[in-house]
Amino acid sequence: MKHIDIKKLLTDAESYVDTSVTVCGWVRNARNSKSVSFIELNDGTCLNNIQLVIDKNEVEVNKNAFNVGAALKAVGSFVRSERNGYEIQIQTIEVLGNCPSDFPLQKKRHTIEFLRTIPHLRVRTRYFEALFAVRDQLSYAVHDYFHKNGYKYVHTPIITGSDCEGAGEMFRVTTQPWDAKAGNGSAYLDEESYFKDDFFGTKAGLTVSAQLEGEMAAMGLGRIYTFGPTFRAEHSNTTRHAAEFWQVEPEVCFADIDDIIEIGEDFIKSIIRDVMEHCPDEIQFFNQWVDKGLIEKLNLVLESDFGRMTYTEAVEILQKSGKEFQYPVEWGCDLQTEHEKYLTEEYLKKPVFVVDYPADIKAFYMKQNPDGKTVAATDLLVPGIGEIIGCSEREADMEKLVAAMEKRGMPLEEYQAYLDTRKYGSVPHSGFGLGFDRMLMYVTGVSNIRDTLLFPRTVGNLF
Amino acid sequence: MKHIDIKKLLTDAESYVDTSVTVCGWVRNARNSKSVSFIELNDGTCLNNIQLVIDKNEVEVNKNAFNVGAALKAVGSFVRSERNGYEIQIQTIEVLGNCPSDFPLQKKRHTIEFLRTIPHLRVRTRYFEALFAVRDQLSYAVHDYFHKNGYKYVHTPIITGSDCEGAGEMFRVTTQPWDAKAGNGSAYLDEESYFKDDFFGTKAGLTVSAQLEGEMAAMGLGRIYTFGPTFRAEHSNTTRHAAEFWQVEPEVCFADIDDIIEIGEDFIKSIIRDVMEHCPDEIQFFNQWVDKGLIEKLNLVLESDFGRMTYTEAVEILQKSGKEFQYPVEWGCDLQTEHEKYLTEEYLKKPVFVVDYPADIKAFYMKQNPDGKTVAATDLLVPGIGEIIGCSEREADMEKLVAAMEKRGMPLEEYQAYLDTRKYGSVPHSGFGLGFDRMLMYVTGVSNIRDTLLFPRTVGNLF
Repeated sequence: MKHIDIKKLLTDAESYVDTSVTVCGWVRNARNSKSVSFIELNDGTCLNNIQLVIDKNEVEVNKNAFNVGAALKAVGSFVRSERNGYEIQIQTIEVLGNCPSDFPLQKKRHTIEFLRTIPHLRVRTRYFEALFAVRDQLSYAVHDYFHKNGYKYVHTPIITGSDCEGAGEMFRVTTQPWDAKAGNGSAYLDEESYFKDDFFGTKAGLTVSAQLEGEMAAMGLGRIYTFGPTFRAEHSNTTRHAAEFWQVEPEVCFADIDDIIEIGEDFIKSIIRDVMEHCPDEIQFFNQWVDKGLIEKLNLVLESDFGRMTYTEAVEILQKSGKEFQYPVEWGCDLQTEHEKYLTEEYLKKPVFVVDYPADIKAFYMKQNPDGKTVAATDLLVPGIGEIIGCSEREADMEKLVAAMEKRGMPLEEYQAYLDTRKYGSVPHSGFGLGFDRMLMYVTGVSNIRDTLLFPRTVGNLF
Repeated sequence: MKHIDIKKLLTDAESYVDTSVTVCGWVRNARNSKSVSFIELNDGTCLNNIQLVIDKNEVEVNKNAFNVGAALKAVGSFVRSERNGYEIQIQTIEVLGNCPSDFPLQKKRHTIEFLRTIPHLRVRTRYFEALFAVRDQLSYAVHDYFHKNGYKYVHTPIITGSDCEGAGEMFRVTTQPWDAKAGNGSAYLDEESYFKDDFFGTKAGLTVSAQLEGEMAAMGLGRIYTFGPTFRAEHSNTTRHAAEFWQVEPEVCFADIDDIIEIGEDFIKSIIRDVMEHCPDEIQFFNQWVDKGLIEKLNLVLESDFGRMTYTEAVEILQKSGKEFQYPVEWGCDLQTEHEKYLTEEYLKKPVFVVDYPADIKAFYMKQNPDGKTVAATDLLVPGIGEIIGCSEREADMEKLVAAMEKRGMPLEEYQAYLDTRKYGSVPHSGFGLGFDRMLMYVTGVSNIRDTLLFPRTVGNLF
């Protein structure tokens, strides 16, 4: 179907003036005056609509072309227009698909909550069109950054037998029927025989993090990143948690904690800059309708040299702050969002890496510092959201790693492949994890993770 | 850790000559002569090693630095070398991580079958380093192609309640324990109450195709593509099937079957051209060691105008071929690989789109042709592999779509969201699916899908 994208038409507008053009799209709005009718058409290629102008004395148009949501193919003359920049004076309109009046997105303001009930249709609103345009550009920015810097994109497995964090909130993957029976027709008597008959011959689940496999890949490919779905069977029904979300996890060999901090700062600035440059209309839209301080906040990140303080310093700062925190602060406690926000928003007023967390509140794979108490781990805190990436240098020393695993009661035999990387030519290496959907929330100001995903998965919700 | 990538060193070699450089990497090989020792070091950034030259009279080096697999940091003078192009005359070597002699990748030729048993280590071989470099570049080529052409990358859900193909080979996703008991402690009596207590409150599985959600996204965003993992619980243990594989699925609104054929040809040529341009060493490696005709085969694809024939013509050609096929050919049968290969390798000797397949052997969502027997579906067949992408125009007419679904006994109530796209402003649209891992097999000549995935998932295998 020969036609031109509305984006192209509006970008190269002057070259199309006074030529005949064909556009396709959906009716966002239509109105009538005595002699002229107007249709706002959107084809998904850009936030802007093109206005179709129908001279009723000259052109006869199928009345269904005026139904909001209808799909049209329109041919006409592309002209300058005083009020709208450009418009199309219509010669013919073909209704590709009619839209009945029970279409839920009639011309009026809809609440985000209502739109959440129709995820399959909300892509036809400005809000979600803008959001998924930014999601697309942010994805590209991630790939582009790592590609240009010599990282290899690897596809780590989604179905896995290992449990990266030692957490228990994994989904199980199975081909056993819900009422599986053993070969002899009786119920399974034990777990082992049940899983022996399952697809993989062992218990399988959905990955909670690609890190361990990422480390194994990096220990040969040098620098890698993953960008794929990860899963947590979290029952917590918050605005920041989804059961299925996308994560970016680079892993860099021959890099220590200082190197990965430098990379993390460069990466975050680079992808924000990319989106602001390539999605100016969308970022402007969110700045106007969602968070009036959005552009200012993003510019602050771009223009700051990120700060750095130790966890121990952070605790002292919080204790001396005179603030009444809901969660009291003492050395050894995990920092809560209220603490993180104070440090980055009020104290330093810019992004900050907090380094050297207590070993006891961090994961087993983090490099143990000489003090015997802390690990070479850092969270990047940014104004407006708190933690955005978690980095660490990984423990490269086999003995120390095994000791940390044993202390946590982890079954070493399930981690033999991972431990092999420390046995055979271990190297200093570091990495971080970025929750991609949360990053999208950050660059758009959108406050609910459910709105950043096409079809969000949360407890009880599988639309 | 300040050091320089071996890739950069060899790419910009002349600018480093006679300067002091620091490199890191793993020992691929080491050998000794009376006064000089040599180490081949690889850091994963490129296929080539750098040779370290140790003058035994001048420099003392830890003997572990000569163990294959050990990780080193080496400092020395970068110089031209007659035999190797460039090499490093060593000043100091630090052993970052030793490698004991039970390292499985000692210097000798290993079979691919053996390497398959150590997926976590095989990334340290030339073969797999080359393979994952091409996988990375091919991924980037996919993103780059669609990004430049105005497609939005969307993340469709991995956990889903729908079953795109009407096939039954889905993995189930659950948080119910293997021996789940109902609330009263007794066994579940029926499926409904079992799934009501599951995480999503309903039966959930891993997606077999992103297409249906992709269509829904396109019907608002205009042009989209997905690139993510898909799953089939296939028990077939072949060289072409994995339980978890990556698929690329674009969906284009206002595009008919002719448009998507044009796009498919342009896309396939574009990503092959990209990989040949950016991975010359790797493609040369595969051409030398895996498939001597590889480069010729890829060039043939680039230089051909892809052919086009109807399924009906294809059947006639096969029947008149005089060939003894294992599966006899008659109108209405599905084309087997032997038929596909004959058409593209022997008959046309170039890639060919076979269009208008019988409706009965294709999926419900394909556009029904006016003949009442065939659908606007096409497979692209290429020499050396057979089918590589499956395209179709989608049925945009609600009544015809519903009729096709009812004919197949599909439960309409589970597809209401999908059907809404036909109810509210339906448009002609088309798309295709590319098995990404199979495409990687094609551009490398590698014949087993298990070798294209970092940690392949197949029945009984969850390494």
